Amino acid sequence: MKQKINIGIIGYGNLGKSVEKTVISSKNMNLVAIFSRREIISPVGTLTEPYFKFKEYVGKIDVMLLCGGSKSDLEIQTPEVAKYFDVINTFDTHAKIAGELKRLDAIAKKYKRRVIMSCGWDPGLFSVIRAMFYAIGRKEPITFWGRGISMGHSDAIRRVPGVRDGVQFTIPNPKALALARAGKEISNMPLHFRECFVCCEPNDEKRIEKEIKSTPNYFKGQPTTIDFVDEKTIKKLKKKMAHKGEVISCFITPCGSKCRIKFSAKMASNPDFTAAIMCAYVNAIINLKNRAQVGALTNLDVAPSDLFDSEEKILLLERFC
Amino acid sequence: MKQKINIGIIGYGNLGKSVEKTVISSKNMNLVAIFSRREIISPVGTLTEPYFKFKEYVGKIDVMLLCGGSKSDLEIQTPEVAKYFDVINTFDTHAKIAGELKRLDAIAKKYKRRVIMSCGWDPGLFSVIRAMFYAIGRKEPITFWGRGISMGHSDAIRRVPGVRDGVQFTIPNPKALALARAGKEISNMPLHFRECFVCCEPNDEKRIEKEIKSTPNYFKGQPTTIDFVDEKTIKKLKKKMAHKGEVISCFITPCGSKCRIKFSAKMASNPDFTAAIMCAYVNAIINLKNRAQVGALTNLDVAPSDLFDSEEKILLLERFC
Repeated sequence: MKQKINIGIIGYGNLGKSVEKTVISSKNMNLVAIFSRREIISPVGTLTEPYFKFKEYVGKIDVMLLCGGSKSDLEIQTPEVAKYFDVINTFDTHAKIAGELKRLDAIAKKYKRRVIMSCGWDPGLFSVIRAMFYAIGRKEPITFWGRGISMGHSDAIRRVPGVRDGVQFTIPNPKALALARAGKEISNMPLHFRECFVCCEPNDEKRIEKEIKSTPNYFKGQPTTIDFVDEKTIKKLKKKMAHKGEVISCFITPCGSKCRIKFSAKMASNPDFTAAIMCAYVNAIINLKNRAQVGALTNLDVAPSDLFDSEEKILLLERFC
Repeated sequence: MKQKINIGIIGYGNLGKSVEKTVISSKNMNLVAIFSRREIISPVGTLTEPYFKFKEYVGKIDVMLLCGGSKSDLEIQTPEVAKYFDVINTFDTHAKIAGELKRLDAIAKKYKRRVIMSCGWDPGLFSVIRAMFYAIGRKEPITFWGRGISMGHSDAIRRVPGVRDGVQFTIPNPKALALARAGKEISNMPLHFRECFVCCEPNDEKRIEKEIKSTPNYFKGQPTTIDFVDEKTIKKLKKKMAHKGEVISCFITPCGSKCRIKFSAKMASNPDFTAAIMCAYVNAIINLKNRAQVGALTNLDVAPSDLFDSEEKILLLERFC
């Protein structure tokens, strides 16, 4: 019997819960413990520990799956944990990814660990698809997201003073989507619509609407609708986990012929799909370790065959080539 | 200015011609010569040489792109050429890929060369997609091909005694395709229809039709239509280069939620698209060389970031993550 990979989870929100189920149901992983700063109970009886105790598990855990949020958790926890363990996270603050990779690479190399960062569906799987599409077509592919909740845009709403709670759904512009699929130019047209639901102090709606719509990088210049609703409605909307995304590249080869390559993902649960991707990269950590490679990587640096253990690797060519 | 990668092409059929155009139009490659066993002339004035002269180009060519057919050319040429050069080929005899990889790996290691084999769209790009889909969903993805010419099936027709010429179009079964896209089970249903056009000696049609339809692995048990036509019609049909393919994986996550991931490629010209993929992997050869890695690989062993040169790599995270 092959030895199972011992897994630890840090963070027990939506993603942590999905990762727990994914690890438990896996044939090659064994869930050792979940670490959290909050007091938590696992409904399936996984051992839970306060966050600070993670250091006591050196030698008992092979890979730590970091399931906190990018903003408040991952930037602090990843460098702390990477001193002791191999780590996978889903860091998704786009503008900071390059800097974060450099910082984590230095730590991982110093402590002889491996980090795979930004390992979700986007960034992560979609990044791989975009890079491959670009390498083949030498043309920038277009990505559409939604309909689904954008955490970044929801956060941006909640940062506006006076906002009690808020959530934002990203919706692809059907006109732009149709043009992209048909390989036509999309000129001067928004790719997405932004549908916001906001709960705020009474009589403050006008100012808040103006402030949200003028947030640079997030809403300014983008078709945005805002519905003011009560807190209960927001709580309900936040539970909508379904999401979608599509990467499209239509290009003309240097020989003059048309090509269209397209990738799409549709998921009933964003955290469940993200968990499936994180867990798929656990084998990559072990393969890197077996080759004594250290440092921080993104999904772009992982060869597809490294998503399989040594036993599965033997059959790869037969099954997929 | 960065130094260009010097390319040689071996074989000057449809694929070789597409690769020639692709290399010439590329910013980072320089086409040195085309080698062929036949007497050839390049319409754009590329230097042409008889096949046996390839050895004289050691030091002048960095990567050889092998553009012959799997059956008669690649099995013989790849081991010969890999003793002198780094090589990419599109070997697609499915059942032989694992054995071929082992054989080429030994040669490449002995002569300190790099080989990327089976590097087309299928096997090749589609293999990568299937492997990644399987790693994430832990369920075998389904592949549909066509409408487009299958070289393997066309060869199988031509092997039947009495057949002068023939060509086979693969067509996905629309019912199966719709079920797969909807994530439903496909039970007891052919995935593809086989449309054959055959030219043969007169009065031999009945026997030939029977023989074709009973060819194991190719036609037996698959819905096959055969049209007997003249040689001119076959020649015309063989020029139809358009093709399509789709990889679909619908799976239930261990958490119980539905996911669908889908990849599709549609091309006006099969050889042009194959050429674009071969040329995308030239950077991978150079990156392997810079790390002093030797041996034979398939696309499954190449990390997406290795499809870019060192200058482009710096911007990868910003552009694709």
